[in-house]
Amino acid sequence: MEGKEEDVREGANKFPERQPIGTAAQVPDERDYAEPPPAPLFEPSELSSWSFYRAGIAEFMATFLFLYITILTVMGVLKSDTKCKSVGIQGIAWAFGGMIFALVYCTAGISGGHINPAVTFGLFLARKLSLTRAIFYMVMQCLGAICGAGVVKGFENASTFERLNGGANFVNPGYTKGDGLGAEIIGTFLLVYTVFSATDAKRSARDSHVPILAPLPIGFAVFLVHLATIPITGTGINPARSLGAAIIFNKDRGWDDHWIFWVGPFIGAALAALYHQVVIRAIPFKAR
Amino acid sequence: MEGKEEDVREGANKFPERQPIGTAAQVPDERDYAEPPPAPLFEPSELSSWSFYRAGIAEFMATFLFLYITILTVMGVLKSDTKCKSVGIQGIAWAFGGMIFALVYCTAGISGGHINPAVTFGLFLARKLSLTRAIFYMVMQCLGAICGAGVVKGFENASTFERLNGGANFVNPGYTKGDGLGAEIIGTFLLVYTVFSATDAKRSARDSHVPILAPLPIGFAVFLVHLATIPITGTGINPARSLGAAIIFNKDRGWDDHWIFWVGPFIGAALAALYHQVVIRAIPFKAR
Amino acid sequence: MEGKEEDVREGANKFPERQPIGTAAQVPDERDYAEPPPAPLFEPSELSSWSFYRAGIAEFMATFLFLYITILTVMGVLKSDTKCKSVGIQGIAWAFGGMIFALVYCTAGISGGHINPAVTFGLFLARKLSLTRAIFYMVMQCLGAICGAGVVKGFENASTFERLNGGANFVNPGYTKGDGLGAEIIGTFLLVYTVFSATDAKRSARDSHVPILAPLPIGFAVFLVHLATIPITGTGINPARSLGAAIIFNKDRGWDDHWIFWVGPFIGAALAALYHQVVIRAIPFKAR
Amino acid sequence: MEGKEEDVREGANKFPERQPIGTAAQVPDERDYAEPPPAPLFEPSELSSWSFYRAGIAEFMATFLFLYITILTVMGVLKSDTKCKSVGIQGIAWAFGGMIFALVYCTAGISGGHINPAVTFGLFLARKLSLTRAIFYMVMQCLGAICGAGVVKGFENASTFERLNGGANFVNPGYTKGDGLGAEIIGTFLLVYTVFSATDAKRSARDSHVPILAPLPIGFAVFLVHLATIPITGTGINPARSLGAAIIFNKDRGWDDHWIFWVGPFIGAALAALYHQVVIRAIPFKAR
Repeated sequence: MEGKEEDVREGANKFPERQPIGTAAQVPDERDYAEPPPAPLFEPSELSSWSFYRAGIAEFMATFLFLYITILTVMGVLKSDTKCKSVGIQGIAWAFGGMIFALVYCTAGISGGHINPAVTFGLFLARKLSLTRAIFYMVMQCLGAICGAGVVKGFENASTFERLNGGANFVNPGYTKGDGLGAEIIGTFLLVYTVFSATDAKRSARDSHVPILAPLPIGFAVFLVHLATIPITGTGINPARSLGAAIIFNKDRGWDDHWIFWVGPFIGAALAALYHQVVIRAIPFKAR
Repeated sequence: MEGKEEDVREGANKFPERQPIGTAAQVPDERDYAEPPPAPLFEPSELSSWSFYRAGIAEFMATFLFLYITILTVMGVLKSDTKCKSVGIQGIAWAFGGMIFALVYCTAGISGGHINPAVTFGLFLARKLSLTRAIFYMVMQCLGAICGAGVVKGFENASTFERLNGGANFVNPGYTKGDGLGAEIIGTFLLVYTVFSATDAKRSARDSHVPILAPLPIGFAVFLVHLATIPITGTGINPARSLGAAIIFNKDRGWDDHWIFWVGPFIGAALAALYHQVVIRAIPFKAR
Repeated sequence: MEGKEEDVREGANKFPERQPIGTAAQVPDERDYAEPPPAPLFEPSELSSWSFYRAGIAEFMATFLFLYITILTVMGVLKSDTKCKSVGIQGIAWAFGGMIFALVYCTAGISGGHINPAVTFGLFLARKLSLTRAIFYMVMQCLGAICGAGVVKGFENASTFERLNGGANFVNPGYTKGDGLGAEIIGTFLLVYTVFSATDAKRSARDSHVPILAPLPIGFAVFLVHLATIPITGTGINPARSLGAAIIFNKDRGWDDHWIFWVGPFIGAALAALYHQVVIRAIPFKAR
Repeated sequence: MEGKEEDVREGANKFPERQPIGTAAQVPDERDYAEPPPAPLFEPSELSSWSFYRAGIAEFMATFLFLYITILTVMGVLKSDTKCKSVGIQGIAWAFGGMIFALVYCTAGISGGHINPAVTFGLFLARKLSLTRAIFYMVMQCLGAICGAGVVKGFENASTFERLNGGANFVNPGYTKGDGLGAEIIGTFLLVYTVFSATDAKRSARDSHVPILAPLPIGFAVFLVHLATIPITGTGINPARSLGAAIIFNKDRGWDDHWIFWVGPFIGAALAALYHQVVIRAIPFKAR
C-alpha cells in the first residue's frame, strides 16, 4: 500500500515531501497521471506495424553511432604516446556518457531510446514492453554495435587495433573476476535506476524537471560509471557494447571474461527494476 | 517587510526586476505561489506512513551510490602512476558533482533529494521538514555512506587502500585547521544556498528555469566547490561522505580533523538558511 | 504509411512506445502538431523582408564568433610546450561543441541557428528553407568563418601560426583519404540527425524535452565527434569552419585535402536528411 | 521596421523562420509578448524599496562567491608542480563558467543575476535598469570581488600568493596590449550577446528553450571565452573580477594593464547592446 490511498488513510498527506523541487508545491495533490497497463508478453499486432520496425532500425542506428564514436575515441587515447596529447581517460568517459545523452534525446520518441540490452531487459521486467519487442531491440542493438566497432577497425591499422585490445572489455590486472562482476552490477543498477526515475509516470506528472531533463541524467549516469570503473573493467554496463567490441577484436582476451558483461548488467538491471517497482513505487502492494 | 506588500506601499512595484530571466516579463505580478507552512518538530503520523520509510530508503541508496562512485573514482586517480593516465583531479570533481546531479534528479520526488546531512540540517532550520524526519534522513545517509565506502574497500587491495588514505577528508599540509574549517563553511554555504534557491516556492512560480533545471545547479555547486577546495581538504561539505570514508579508512589521520567536516558544513548550512530566509525572502518580517 | 493513420488501421496504436520519456504518457494521442509545408525553392518576397537579411547577419556573426573562439583555443593548446599546461585536446572539443550550443541557443529564433553549410544543406534537402535562403546562409557562414580565423591570425605571431597549421583541417598521417572522408560523413550524419530530431514538429508536440533542451544535444553532437575524430582529420563536419581556416592558413597542406571537408559533410547531411525524412518520419509514404 | 508589422506588409510572414527550434512551429504567430518600457535614468522611489537593497546584497554575495571559488581554483592549479596533479587550465575555465551558471540561476530572480559590471553596463545601455541601480550594482559587485579575493589570500601563504600573481589579469608575454584589448572586447561581446539573447522578451514568449535554459548558455559563454583567452590575458571580461584580484594582489604588474580590463569589457558590452537592440531587434526603427 502506498501513495495517495495510504497517505489519505494514515493522515500523513499533509507532509508527504516538504522540499519538493519543481512545481510540486503549486500542483494540487491529485492523481493526475495514468499508470500505463503492463505490456503483454506477445503482441502479434505489433509485428504488422511500421512503427515497430522503425523502432528497431532506430536502435540499430543509435547503437552503431554509439560504438563508432566511443571506440574511435578509445583508440585515439590509447594510441597517443602520452595521454596528455589526447582527450584523456576523462574524454573517453565523456564520449560514452555524451553519446547516450544525445542518442536518448534523438530516439526517445521513436523507440524509447534504450541503446542497451540491459536497459531493455530492465524495462521488460517492469512490463514496459513486450517480449517480442525486447528480443527484437536486443538483436538490433547487438548488430548495430558490431557494425560500429567494425567501422572503427576499418579506420585503424590492424596491428595497432589488436595491440590496443580494440576497445574490448575485460577485468584489468589487480582485480578479481568478482570485483569486475560487482562493478558491472552496481554500475548498471545506477544506470537503470536513473532510467526508471526518468520514465516514472507519477513523477513526470508532478515534477516539471523530470520529463524535460530526462536524457541528461541518463547520459550522466553512464559518464559517472565510466569515471569510476574504467580502471576495473573498462566499463561495460551495456552488453551490446561489450559484444560488438569483443566480436570485432575476436581474441581470447576479449572472450574469456565476456560472460561478466552480460551477467553483471542483467543482474544490475533486474535489481534496479525490483528497487524501483517494489520499493519506490510499491506496485505489487497497490490496490488496483 | 518585503515582496509584494512592501512594493505596493512604496510605489516601487513598477521596477522590481528589470532583467528578469525566464518568463517573469510575461507573467502578471500576482502572488501565484503558496508558501508552505513550517513543518512541525514532531509529526507522529509521519511515522506510520510508508512514504516516510521509503524516503529514508531512497536517501540510504542515494548516499550509498554516491560514495561508491566517488570513492572508487578517487582510488582510480590516486593509483595511476601519472595523473594523465587517469580521469585526473578534474574527473574526481565531476564524479562528486555529477553524482549529486543524477541523484537529486532521481530522488527529489521521493525524499527531497538531500543525500547530505548538511542539506537536511539547513532545510530543517528553515522548517521545511520535521525534526523526526531530519534525524531519520541523517542516520540513513550516514549508513549509506559507510556501505558505499566499504564496497570500494572490498574492491581494492587493502594496503593500496590505506596508502591512498581511502578517500578520507583531512586538512592538507600547508593549510591550517582554520583554513580547512573556513573552506568547509563557505563551500557548504554555496551548496545550501543553491538548494534554497532551487526550492524557493516564490521563484518557482515566477521563473520557469528554476524548477526545471533545479538538479543541475545543485550538482554544479558540488562540482565547483571540489574544483576549488580539493587542494585544501579534499572537500567534504557533506558530513555523511566524510564519516563514511573515515569509518572505512579508520586511521588516526582520518579521525584527527574529522570534527571540521561536521562543524564546518553545519555552520555553512545554517548561514545559508539565515541568508536565504532572512535576507532574500525576509520571512521573519513578513506580514502573515 | 506510418504514424497515427497506420497505427489505427493496424490496431497497433495501443502500444506505440511503451517507454515514453517526457510527458507522452499523459498526452492524449492526437495529431496535435502541424507539419509545416515544404518551402518553395525560390520565394521572391523573402528578399524584401528585413528578417531575411537579419538572419544572414546573425549567421555571419555566429560563424565569426565560432571560428574566433575555436581557432584561438586550438592555437593556445598547440603552442603550450606540454599539453598539460593548456586546456588540452579535450578543451578543444569543448570549445567547438560549447560554441555550437551557445550559438544555437542565441540564434535559433533569428535564423534557425545553422552556423554550418552542411546543416543548411541538410535542412534544404528536407525543404525546410528556400534555395535562396540556403545559398545566402552558406555565403554568410563562409564570410564569417574567414573573418573569425583572420582575427586569430592577427593575434598570433605569423610564424607560430604557420608552424601550428592555423587550425586548418587535413587528414593526419596514418590515415588514408578514405578514412578521412568516412569520418567526415559519419560525423556530419550524427550532427545533422541530431538537428533533425531537435526540430521535428511531431516530437516537439509530444515530448516536452525535445524543444526545451534542443541546443544542448546539438552542441554535444559536435563535442562528441571532435572527441572521436580530432586524431583523424582535426574534425571538420562544417565546411565553413574548414574553408575559413584554410583560406587564412593558405598553404598547400591546407588545400590538398580541402575537398574532403565539403564532400564528406554534404554526403553526411544528405544521408541524415534521408534517414530522418524517409525512415523515421516516412514522409514520402504518408497520406497527405 | 521589423518583425510582425513588416512581415505582414511584405507578405513574408508565411516563412519567417523555417527551422524553428522550440515550440515555435506550434504557437500561433501573435504578438504574445510585452516589450517592457525603457527604465528611467533615476527612479527615486526605488531607493525606498527593500527589493532594491536586497538585489545589491545578492550581487555582493554572488560576486564574493564567484571570486572565492575561481581564484582559489587558480591558486590550486598554479601551485601544483605539474598541472596534471591539479584540475588543470580546463578546470579553471570550468570554475569561471560553472560559477556564473550556478549564480545566475540563484540570483536571476533577485537582482537579474549580473555579477559583472560589463553586463550591468550593457543592460543599462539598453535601458533595462535605471542609472541608480546600475551604479549601485557595480559598487556592490566590486566590493564582493575584493572580499572574495581577500579570503583566498587569507588561505594561502603570502609569498606563494605573490609568486602566483594572485589570479590577477594582465597581458601575457608574446601578446601586445592591443591583442589583450581585442580579446577582452570580443570575449565580452560574446557574453553580453548571450545575456541579451537569454533575456529577450520576444524570444522568451516564442521559443520554449530560451527562458528555461537561460543560465546555462550564459555560463557556457564565460567558460568558452576562458578556454580561448586564458593564454592571452588570463581572461577578464568582468571588471569586478579583475579589480578584486588586482587590489588584493596590489603589485605594479597587476595595475599596469588594468585599464584594459575595464575599457575592453565596456566596449564589448556596448557593441553587444548595439548589435542586439539595433540589428537583431531593430528597436529604433520600430513603430511604437
